[in-house]
Amino acid sequence: MSVTVSPLAPKAYPEMPALRGVRMATAAAGIKYKNRTDVLLMVFDDGADVAGVFTRSKCPSAPVDFCRANLPHGKARAVVVNSGNANAFTGVKGKAATELTAQSASEAVGCGLNEVYLASTGVIGEPLDATKFAGVLGEMNGRGTPDFWLEAAKAIMTTDTYPKVATRQAELGGVTVTINGIAKGAGMIAPDMATMLSFVVTDADIAAPALQALLSEGVGPTFNSVTVDSDTSTSDTLLLFATGKAAADGQARIEAADDARLASFRAALNDLLKDLALQVVRDGEGARKMVEVRVTGAESDAAAKRIALSIANSPLVKTAVAGEDANWGRVVMAVGKSGEAADRDRLAIWFGDVRVAVNGERDAGYSEAAATAVMQRQDIVIRADIGLGSGTATVWTCDLTKEYVAINGDYRS
Amino acid sequence: MSVTVSPLAPKAYPEMPALRGVRMATAAAGIKYKNRTDVLLMVFDDGADVAGVFTRSKCPSAPVDFCRANLPHGKARAVVVNSGNANAFTGVKGKAATELTAQSASEAVGCGLNEVYLASTGVIGEPLDATKFAGVLGEMNGRGTPDFWLEAAKAIMTTDTYPKVATRQAELGGVTVTINGIAKGAGMIAPDMATMLSFVVTDADIAAPALQALLSEGVGPTFNSVTVDSDTSTSDTLLLFATGKAAADGQARIEAADDARLASFRAALNDLLKDLALQVVRDGEGARKMVEVRVTGAESDAAAKRIALSIANSPLVKTAVAGEDANWGRVVMAVGKSGEAADRDRLAIWFGDVRVAVNGERDAGYSEAAATAVMQRQDIVIRADIGLGSGTATVWTCDLTKEYVAINGDYRS
Repeated sequence: MSVTVSPLAPKAYPEMPALRGVRMATAAAGIKYKNRTDVLLMVFDDGADVAGVFTRSKCPSAPVDFCRANLPHGKARAVVVNSGNANAFTGVKGKAATELTAQSASEAVGCGLNEVYLASTGVIGEPLDATKFAGVLGEMNGRGTPDFWLEAAKAIMTTDTYPKVATRQAELGGVTVTINGIAKGAGMIAPDMATMLSFVVTDADIAAPALQALLSEGVGPTFNSVTVDSDTSTSDTLLLFATGKAAADGQARIEAADDARLASFRAALNDLLKDLALQVVRDGEGARKMVEVRVTGAESDAAAKRIALSIANSPLVKTAVAGEDANWGRVVMAVGKSGEAADRDRLAIWFGDVRVAVNGERDAGYSEAAATAVMQRQDIVIRADIGLGSGTATVWTCDLTKEYVAINGDYRS
Repeated sequence: MSVTVSPLAPKAYPEMPALRGVRMATAAAGIKYKNRTDVLLMVFDDGADVAGVFTRSKCPSAPVDFCRANLPHGKARAVVVNSGNANAFTGVKGKAATELTAQSASEAVGCGLNEVYLASTGVIGEPLDATKFAGVLGEMNGRGTPDFWLEAAKAIMTTDTYPKVATRQAELGGVTVTINGIAKGAGMIAPDMATMLSFVVTDADIAAPALQALLSEGVGPTFNSVTVDSDTSTSDTLLLFATGKAAADGQARIEAADDARLASFRAALNDLLKDLALQVVRDGEGARKMVEVRVTGAESDAAAKRIALSIANSPLVKTAVAGEDANWGRVVMAVGKSGEAADRDRLAIWFGDVRVAVNGERDAGYSEAAATAVMQRQDIVIRADIGLGSGTATVWTCDLTKEYVAINGDYRS
């Protein structure tokens, strides 16, 4: 946790409403940090349907293995999250740490081992001493409260400079339901997996298979469309829980993701996922500028996304943004290296509303001053039209600054 | 051209021998730089067989298009290289600039347009005013000299901090032949294409198709195995010329790349290509450390190379190297994100000779002090054994420093 808050941080936190069916508590177990909370317990007293997406790393952490194994059961009663140690690449000790934590949670809450979900974030490769917090889960369960979202978000931070929370309401079968979410993440953020840790809870009554379909679909244009540094964590975990408490208001349980009644819920969920994902980018390590990369005119949406990620992950594009340099030649480079079909002589590029290149060369009406003015903003849109088809994609990233290098040059020390 | 020479620069330049059949001259045309040479003319008075490999960018520069079109002819008489402007993404003006340059070279040297080769390096997207140097090619041809390799290397530099030259001798059919090469490149360097500009000349008598096969094979473990920043230039060009002058010593012309007499030549060529490629990495923008990434035990050599590049391109690995931090957890991360088969519990990782992780967890005998001592060196070997097969690969990269960000944050200004 840095003392300096990202300049891109939200100016204010939303008021996070209590959500029926979930209670939370945090504790300071001293896993790595001093004088701050580093363990979160979430409890669903009457259970919740659960869905999850995880890192695509071939070397996932022990907690990711643990969650994946439990997910087919579809029901959750407890979530234990710790910061400071990722319990990744910790061999048999790592597995033992997850088992100890799950056993303790199961005893504290009174549930099956297959109803426990775990996540750990922090340093990779250091054995996690789960005894530091396993013993306090009972006490934490005793004082858990529904009105604790911001504190929950704080307990799971690592290099984050601010806690990330979001809330939405939706209409579901004539009943108003709520979705609350928290997230953490600032570096080792790349797409094509769940990206970082995030826990989203709704009081809607939705069965696990439908919930999974909603989540898997929802991450595509949100968490899977953000990148800070192209590095994929071993531990990325996004869990979605439905406590079903809205059934008390008359909400009929939803069994299938294609249920037409889900329209409002789906939109609210996707909007919340995007909110949290963008908060992660805005807290990108060393970030000073937020960049939205929009690609249009590609051969397909998939091609557009690969081109957009090629731009968003290019160190030369990201350092140009840091230098407030409207260096569109580097955007051309990044389009060209993506491997996707591109025709140099049909390409057009914009910084904000300023078209800097068109038909394969510098725009005749291009004003360096106008483009530079765009680059001096905190939020920048880079747009590339490939001119070949109708494929579109939008991804988000941040600039690459000296502070990123400084933060990551001595993270362990 | 920076005033500060990379700390990884060679301590001394090799004595570059004159090479029969090629003459060179440079000029200061003021394309972008002041008080330095920025144009190189190479002339093969009696012609040369030629081979080339180029960037795989989908948005290549106009000179790359021009060279690709000429290559099937197989014969070269002149090469014109300019620094300061890449003539890339310059539309019809770019094509006109290559045509003007080629026309001028053809008149200066007295050869066909299809015997001219062109390369440009520098800023992308700015129209290249070829009139600045097209008019001086005749005068340059008049004073061209064979003994000019270091000056030639200097004229093609951009953000390079030192000129890159290499020379080798080989035995071919009982005759001693020489291979000389120059290269430039410091940023926008990534593999899977020819990478940056390099011009290699031999006095051996080898037909173009054989030369092409030798070159295409030779770039795999050399120029295609180095990365500075994962960014692929629009302009990468590597040309290999054979003047055939060794025929005067009795060297019988080689027509096919599988000719057994090529063994010594092939080895010398590959060694020279590796020498030049590593010089490019050692001049990586902002580089303070050279990193060799060795992957063993992968499912195949191709898988090993993808894993090695995933490690070498990871910003988190590269910043850890910059910070002299033996953060092997980030190597695990990079192995995991490569997409190639990996088994966490079989993975072993070394920094230098220090094994830091084995069987999926920290090595019990791991000494932080010993690992840190390795990281404090200027040349660092990171090794990962995947434990699944016999695939191996070695790639080279440099660290990611604040200076990289500084250099690229205001390159245009």
